[in-house]
Amino acid sequence: MRVKIYYHHTDSGGVVYYASYLRFFEEARTEFLEEKEIYLTELVKQGWFFVVSRQEIDYKAPAYYGDILDVSSSVSDLTRVRINFTHQVKNELGSLICTAKTTLVYVNRDFKPTVIPREIIAKLGIPEKE
Amino acid sequence: MRVKIYYHHTDSGGVVYYASYLRFFEEARTEFLEEKEIYLTELVKQGWFFVVSRQEIDYKAPAYYGDILDVSSSVSDLTRVRINFTHQVKNELGSLICTAKTTLVYVNRDFKPTVIPREIIAKLGIPEKE
Amino acid sequence: MRVKIYYHHTDSGGVVYYASYLRFFEEARTEFLEEKEIYLTELVKQGWFFVVSRQEIDYKAPAYYGDILDVSSSVSDLTRVRINFTHQVKNELGSLICTAKTTLVYVNRDFKPTVIPREIIAKLGIPEKE
Amino acid sequence: MRVKIYYHHTDSGGVVYYASYLRFFEEARTEFLEEKEIYLTELVKQGWFFVVSRQEIDYKAPAYYGDILDVSSSVSDLTRVRINFTHQVKNELGSLICTAKTTLVYVNRDFKPTVIPREIIAKLGIPEKE
Repeated sequence: MRVKIYYHHTDSGGVVYYASYLRFFEEARTEFLEEKEIYLTELVKQGWFFVVSRQEIDYKAPAYYGDILDVSSSVSDLTRVRINFTHQVKNELGSLICTAKTTLVYVNRDFKPTVIPREIIAKLGIPEKE
Repeated sequence: MRVKIYYHHTDSGGVVYYASYLRFFEEARTEFLEEKEIYLTELVKQGWFFVVSRQEIDYKAPAYYGDILDVSSSVSDLTRVRINFTHQVKNELGSLICTAKTTLVYVNRDFKPTVIPREIIAKLGIPEKE
Repeated sequence: MRVKIYYHHTDSGGVVYYASYLRFFEEARTEFLEEKEIYLTELVKQGWFFVVSRQEIDYKAPAYYGDILDVSSSVSDLTRVRINFTHQVKNELGSLICTAKTTLVYVNRDFKPTVIPREIIAKLGIPEKE
Repeated sequence: MRVKIYYHHTDSGGVVYYASYLRFFEEARTEFLEEKEIYLTELVKQGWFFVVSRQEIDYKAPAYYGDILDVSSSVSDLTRVRINFTHQVKNELGSLICTAKTTLVYVNRDFKPTVIPREIIAKLGIPEKE
């Protein structure tokens, strides 16, 4: 996924604000899942959500206004109850901006974690870990 | 209401981002209403919302990282179906940063505008316009 | 310009937050100007900025998570010192979500308004008003 | 530090958006440093910044519109080149919402990491680790 940096992503330190990357990761994860035909909007209608239970980010270099960033997103591994995503952001010169890991858990309307349905696991096409 | 400016309010132009003021106005309006004992959280539970139907802002001078802004909010007038707020933002030196007008309408869960209940009008203590 | 709505654009009222549209307008204006070969990143390097001096928005209908919005941006008129943009947001069904007007002024590093250079006016290709 | 949750902090999942916590941590860290008489605005004038090099967050429970959160921030340890902060967010009932660790590095205008000045270390009042 490509993201162009506008003023609303930046701060007066002259760089992309550290929380803006979490917005990019949300977008990249959603697109990754939709490519696998997993639609969060459909799940929501049925009362299910994926929520973030853990986020790690290592900031390697700043990104700037006008940059076009490449945000990659992939599933590194999964268990019956959680999906681990790996994200990487690079700028147009190929410099690494940041790397990140996001853990999603599957919850119902009351935010109670639940086993991820077989159908979703199958669509992800990744073998489960114990 | 006083707001201290942190990096997340600013952009790489070195100033407070123009949309950040709408967050301040939301906060100031909510506090204004709560002083009048009108609690949006209570209304939401009953299926009612105030939504913004119109916003005007005149940006007069930039605000900067570290500034402490004074955000005022008051009801300028109201009708049976809408409330007009006036907002003003000043910095610590008393310089005018921006002025704004916000029109709220009262809606149900389906975003259908509805007559504002007598009880709310009474709490606002402002005579209705025709 | 098309914008897909993610969670970070929305609020717990279940709709797109009213300030999020200002981010969309920033993006749409920037793209409009770049199509005319006016690059804000180039102007910034030379110490010039376009800043918003006035914003008006009329919210007509809510937009929701998962919507794909069409955000249009065009110059309605200009003078030697300001450019007036008109924005319109529609959803995939063609319903009007909001309309807006944004006034930009051209400023130097000290935020002092300045006459817009002939070269920029020429690129916009719109006759100046008195 | 206490933070009241407004619509702009939330998303249409009905809860505080996962990136909003990073804004709270920025605010809490800044206030922590100012209590120690370390003013980021002063450092910036001299061409120095603290930037986030790593962020970890564990989300334990959702927070909601209208909640008043208690955001704590403290320095867990530091070396000559980095400061590690620990953050904790609780709601009014005392429930743990999230815990987080933030690593700051001290950089110059070119984002080159630099040894943290003795004066700042002294103000923090925490013994350095090797």
